[in-house]
Amino acid sequence: MSDTQNTSFINKPDNHSKNALKSPDRSAATHQYDAAIQALQAQFGDKLSTNMTVREQHGHTMTWLANQPPDAVLSAQDKHDVAKAVEICHQHKMPVIAFGIGSSLEGQLNAPYGGLCIDMHALDAVLQVNNEDLTVTVQPGVTREQLNHYLRDTGLFFPIDPGANASIGGMVATRASGTNAVRYGTMKDVVLALEVVTASGEIIKTGTRAKKSAAGYDLTRLMVGSEGTLGIVTEITLKLSGIHECVASGLCHFPTIEDACQAVMLTIQMCLPIARIELLDALQIKACNQYAHLNLAETPTLFVEFHGTEAGVHEQAQSFSDIIEEFGGTDFVWDTDETERKRLWEARHNAYHASSALRPEAKALSTDACVPISRLAECVSATAKDIEDAGMIGPIVGHVGDGNFHVLLLVNTDDPDEVSKAENIIDRLAKRAIEMDGTCTGEHGIGQGKQKYMQQEHGSALIMMQAIKQALDPHNILNPGKIWPSLP
Amino acid sequence: MSDTQNTSFINKPDNHSKNALKSPDRSAATHQYDAAIQALQAQFGDKLSTNMTVREQHGHTMTWLANQPPDAVLSAQDKHDVAKAVEICHQHKMPVIAFGIGSSLEGQLNAPYGGLCIDMHALDAVLQVNNEDLTVTVQPGVTREQLNHYLRDTGLFFPIDPGANASIGGMVATRASGTNAVRYGTMKDVVLALEVVTASGEIIKTGTRAKKSAAGYDLTRLMVGSEGTLGIVTEITLKLSGIHECVASGLCHFPTIEDACQAVMLTIQMCLPIARIELLDALQIKACNQYAHLNLAETPTLFVEFHGTEAGVHEQAQSFSDIIEEFGGTDFVWDTDETERKRLWEARHNAYHASSALRPEAKALSTDACVPISRLAECVSATAKDIEDAGMIGPIVGHVGDGNFHVLLLVNTDDPDEVSKAENIIDRLAKRAIEMDGTCTGEHGIGQGKQKYMQQEHGSALIMMQAIKQALDPHNILNPGKIWPSLP
Repeated sequence: MSDTQNTSFINKPDNHSKNALKSPDRSAATHQYDAAIQALQAQFGDKLSTNMTVREQHGHTMTWLANQPPDAVLSAQDKHDVAKAVEICHQHKMPVIAFGIGSSLEGQLNAPYGGLCIDMHALDAVLQVNNEDLTVTVQPGVTREQLNHYLRDTGLFFPIDPGANASIGGMVATRASGTNAVRYGTMKDVVLALEVVTASGEIIKTGTRAKKSAAGYDLTRLMVGSEGTLGIVTEITLKLSGIHECVASGLCHFPTIEDACQAVMLTIQMCLPIARIELLDALQIKACNQYAHLNLAETPTLFVEFHGTEAGVHEQAQSFSDIIEEFGGTDFVWDTDETERKRLWEARHNAYHASSALRPEAKALSTDACVPISRLAECVSATAKDIEDAGMIGPIVGHVGDGNFHVLLLVNTDDPDEVSKAENIIDRLAKRAIEMDGTCTGEHGIGQGKQKYMQQEHGSALIMMQAIKQALDPHNILNPGKIWPSLP
Repeated sequence: MSDTQNTSFINKPDNHSKNALKSPDRSAATHQYDAAIQALQAQFGDKLSTNMTVREQHGHTMTWLANQPPDAVLSAQDKHDVAKAVEICHQHKMPVIAFGIGSSLEGQLNAPYGGLCIDMHALDAVLQVNNEDLTVTVQPGVTREQLNHYLRDTGLFFPIDPGANASIGGMVATRASGTNAVRYGTMKDVVLALEVVTASGEIIKTGTRAKKSAAGYDLTRLMVGSEGTLGIVTEITLKLSGIHECVASGLCHFPTIEDACQAVMLTIQMCLPIARIELLDALQIKACNQYAHLNLAETPTLFVEFHGTEAGVHEQAQSFSDIIEEFGGTDFVWDTDETERKRLWEARHNAYHASSALRPEAKALSTDACVPISRLAECVSATAKDIEDAGMIGPIVGHVGDGNFHVLLLVNTDDPDEVSKAENIIDRLAKRAIEMDGTCTGEHGIGQGKQKYMQQEHGSALIMMQAIKQALDPHNILNPGKIWPSLP
């Protein structure tokens, strides 16, 4: 990685620059924020709440980071509410944070500098389905389960499945992916176009419904994954997928994680169009057995799903069976019947709750990393050893076709020693992934939790990101203090 | 589309802004460029040429746009040459344009403000193949045919096929795609990471070899398609695909373009993983018949390719046969034998030369547009009518699975009336595509030729693009006058 010297190519944000990415000054600005909130109250009336319970609900985190509530919460009813609210915040230089359903995992929704939280839950309309084009346009508050429910009679589905029933807007913000990504891609691959409220409250459109374009900069992909720091999304046009005639689910066991990873690599090299391929380590299987009274062999296990025609799915299952045999895979069972499929995947679906039940009094903290698949076994094994050495409990589940995996650390967050041990495990994992030419997060995002790895991962490219932020949000009002710290 | 009012959200480039996207002032700056060229000569010696023939070769266009040669051409030998040259250009505020193989179609390589052209042909090394990860890292001068030749024994291939034997660097710059895009995506989908020389001559890296990441802004996709206006690419890491066990090629005829498009839509809705699906209109087939002494029915024709296992390919072909029957498709023939496949696709492979031969004394000018597939038949038919009404010759070929198609207008470019008619056809096509919620270019890019449509297609988002350009290239030295005009 390059360092940050010789960064004259851009207007480097620094303490001397008038518009640097500086922190909104809370202490000096209280009066200013009061004026902003008065202006918002005048504009929105009952849609605006300053109730502390409501504020705390919107500043919650899924981490050990402290709750940092916003000063007020707006329940936006349409895009014009969002645009007007941002315009007011822009006038008063007050931070503004969009809220979907609150399932982000790295403190993306905290309000370290206060400001306004715009809750998008009422923007929950599916605006337009185009069956012939396999596209849909939705408001950001629609959740992925709502969307798939809406689509149930169309023969189409929205394939991105990050586990949580996240809002589509939130999934855009964190560049979400999940179990289907190995075949269907991530949010970066399925977003065709966005409607975005900019830092000054203007509504713009990025992209069209054409499947591809070579007309100028790819603002859509710049917005996807920007965690609300470059604009607030008010409409999303997505590519959908056709539902295949036949779906089969299955699982098999391996002597070691290395063997399982080798089988996954060969599966992908052989062009098997696998729809899901998930690794659960031995501890995770043990947790699932205990939780759901299952009787699975407590060894590294792959859960797989095949999508295709009936003949195609049978052929895929046979090819997969041949592949795993080479690497000591055993007890491969699979089925196309829906009830049986659910039974086979029960352990995978219950992974989170099963893990939590290993230590019910602890908080379950999820972290993720992503590496080239050739390094996956090494990365998972070294991480498992770190967890063991620390005497902690941390089952591992991986979207292994992408080289992406999660550790669920069970931590007593009231014990500073445990928190420190957990932080150390996460720290070593993030750095290890980057050293393996991977990334400190495959799908959870940076938020507040992973800012310290941005320099190591991106080098001088980080300065380029900050130059873009400064150009598009000169007052640093859009979700400040996320992705990188605001400068003092 | 929104208009450009209320654009205060960014430092709007305008005549009052010190660092607006203004034209390098050639007349006043001659002396300054002389100094820059002297500095480049001192640095690079014989690697730098100011020979007019060499300069004109590097300012060529594939359009009716006049040749605008650079002031000098550097044959870069490595990334450090590129970085040093850009640094010198930066010091002297002289334009700098990267040159791959010269196959861009919208004047991307012209030098309207002079400056330095950096020829990348010597940066032609395949640096690293990672079979296990299906990735490769190459220098920008490698062409797609060179890369696939290099990969021939690995079981892997690079799937993006824009027709021309383009350089990978050029394909990054224009966000190229082509016949395989319906299954394998475009350059935006296969580029994992880039090494980029910034406007000040610094070398940065965007992305890693991990298949996905949620760590900060997607600079990789911002660079892809930016036509050399945000940085010069010196290394590219690509995702590869496994070569399938079986490939089948085929063709079939339809009564109308509408019927052919309906068959394509159903093919995609039915989840058929079609690898290529190309439409040739009746005139194009007639041209191919004449050129290669073929005997194809002169009606709209689909050329298809299936990739998969042997059983899978047979199943796909059978399903496709069933689908086309619904829409009057006839004479479907297909084969898996390589010689026979080539024979079947001969007409498609010869399309360009066959079209040109319809009027050998004319110049063949290629334009493209892309629309939602549900609008494709209407867009193609209206365009064909425009061509007929103008009394011109312009066969149509489409990457129809993406809603993307090309018109090859055969124009006597010495006849202003013909040029005007051709411009009018292209103008109506671009505007029609945008009105259909599509784009004025699916894969050729904007360059100089399509700048006038950026406002209609992007509205205020255009201002956001320009703010990014200004932030990353404040002196506007990177390929100025492309994508949008430089301001006076």
